Amino acid sequence: MLHDLFNTSVQHALDLVGIFVFAISGALLAVRKNFDVFGIAVFAEVTALGGGLFRDIVIGAVPPAAFTDLGYFITPLIAAALVFFLHPEVERIQAGVNVFDAAGLGLFCVTGTTKAYDYGLGLTASAVMGLATAVGGGVLRDVLANETPSLVRWDRDLYAVPAVVGATMVALFIRFDLLSTTTGCVAALTCFVLRLLALRFHWRASRAWNRRSSAVSTDE
Amino acid sequence: MLHDLFNTSVQHALDLVGIFVFAISGALLAVRKNFDVFGIAVFAEVTALGGGLFRDIVIGAVPPAAFTDLGYFITPLIAAALVFFLHPEVERIQAGVNVFDAAGLGLFCVTGTTKAYDYGLGLTASAVMGLATAVGGGVLRDVLANETPSLVRWDRDLYAVPAVVGATMVALFIRFDLLSTTTGCVAALTCFVLRLLALRFHWRASRAWNRRSSAVSTDE
Amino acid sequence: MLHDLFNTSVQHALDLVGIFVFAISGALLAVRKNFDVFGIAVFAEVTALGGGLFRDIVIGAVPPAAFTDLGYFITPLIAAALVFFLHPEVERIQAGVNVFDAAGLGLFCVTGTTKAYDYGLGLTASAVMGLATAVGGGVLRDVLANETPSLVRWDRDLYAVPAVVGATMVALFIRFDLLSTTTGCVAALTCFVLRLLALRFHWRASRAWNRRSSAVSTDE
Repeated sequence: MLHDLFNTSVQHALDLVGIFVFAISGALLAVRKNFDVFGIAVFAEVTALGGGLFRDIVIGAVPPAAFTDLGYFITPLIAAALVFFLHPEVERIQAGVNVFDAAGLGLFCVTGTTKAYDYGLGLTASAVMGLATAVGGGVLRDVLANETPSLVRWDRDLYAVPAVVGATMVALFIRFDLLSTTTGCVAALTCFVLRLLALRFHWRASRAWNRRSSAVSTDE
Repeated sequence: MLHDLFNTSVQHALDLVGIFVFAISGALLAVRKNFDVFGIAVFAEVTALGGGLFRDIVIGAVPPAAFTDLGYFITPLIAAALVFFLHPEVERIQAGVNVFDAAGLGLFCVTGTTKAYDYGLGLTASAVMGLATAVGGGVLRDVLANETPSLVRWDRDLYAVPAVVGATMVALFIRFDLLSTTTGCVAALTCFVLRLLALRFHWRASRAWNRRSSAVSTDE
Repeated sequence: MLHDLFNTSVQHALDLVGIFVFAISGALLAVRKNFDVFGIAVFAEVTALGGGLFRDIVIGAVPPAAFTDLGYFITPLIAAALVFFLHPEVERIQAGVNVFDAAGLGLFCVTGTTKAYDYGLGLTASAVMGLATAVGGGVLRDVLANETPSLVRWDRDLYAVPAVVGATMVALFIRFDLLSTTTGCVAALTCFVLRLLALRFHWRASRAWNRRSSAVSTDE
């Protein structure tokens, strides 16, 4: 299987790390929105597992990994418990959370792309699935919190573009038969570093050409 | 089949009751939000069938029951028509709606858990699916209505916890080979009674530890 | 295959036209909401492909057509690029966009219904799927943009009803064995013309009976 790109136990450990840090970000949003302890757990689960769940449903890998691996389910609960008791401390280490979140982004765009390719999708579709895996949980988190997804807001540092780059690199590696543990790590690292640079230098994407006003019109 | 836990025709009748009362709650929200008659029908359908639809897609039971049983589709339309013509009366009997809604919650968490187990999920995953079946329609209703899901709001009486208890009881009954019509009813009743007690005594879940302010911050 | 109702290459071309115009409407909303260039692309994709993606997941046609046909993926990107550079011009031709959007609505409700029937759904369920295919992308667009779906707002011209009529016609044609390229086109045209008439004469659906106040209550 192609998505056994990394040593299985290494990949599983990395998956759990990615799930854990995404869960932290979901739980923190729930605390900020003043949700109760159950809401914190729900947001941890949804943010951590939403992207992979969407990918597995689309590619037909049902029941999804999120429901067949108990570790995937329990890890977000641990993150939720940590945030529940320690949230002022967790917010203080937001910079650290950002680093882990960037690591999760890099990892998920690589594993998402390879798993989709394994299930028979084309290279472009696989890269899109890799992107969806990496950013899907965050979008679901924002939709449930009744907020505009930070993914598409122009006033947020680049988040999706690093994942696009990482997923595209993996697709190209597959295309030219170069995918290995090493090149997979290179793609994940590229995404990771790009995201950190975007945070550090506040890289942002352009809005529409000739956008003169920053006023948001909600009329149609 | 394990999920033929109850006599088939009894279970079907109970399913339709659960669907009907969930549809009432969706239609009432649509009236409150000032949606048109089509919106009322959409909200009745989505609230009643959303949880089961999500469950069936995740466990791979496609096409979902919502699309193969005509009664499942027509029942919410009847609820929508009732609300359309009689909504002041329906709101007046909100207490009655709450009782039926609690009954639906109890029933759906039991049937959701058993159906998921039937499709090969583990016990924990099955209980999670039972919970998702019971609360999924309400979450979808709130997301479509552009509101924060009442599921996660700390200022609402406990809703998910009774479903968690009911689904967990079913999983434990399966684990110890004790699941029968009787024990299934006990689990549904436990969920039902817990929900009514939560409504009666305004049981609420705790927010995060040391949460000092009730102000909601939307900054990130 | 029944859904090869039209000549395959003709249907594919019509599909791409429908996808293109739906993508334009998604991209324009993203510009209005002040999203960045990535957000514009995401909204173009989601609006154009969301309805078909939902249909394919529900009927078990995975991986969905949106991920197996590269043209389906690239067309929205072209629409997004056009809107990015030319959005004042595109808004000026909003009337033209509305006409194309109505054409997409008519086409998608026909192809959605026939594809669902092909995958074994009953006639009523197939018509519902046809409706969901036609309006699903727009609903997803509005949910992601954190707006109340215009589908259910009483102050918008009829949008779903024309699609309901078109999908029902197709189901009846199938029932009486009358479905052909000609009758399929008649159904699509009926939906198309009804939508244009609704826009021209501001047809709107009724709100709930005896709705006395236009105030929106968000209490529960």
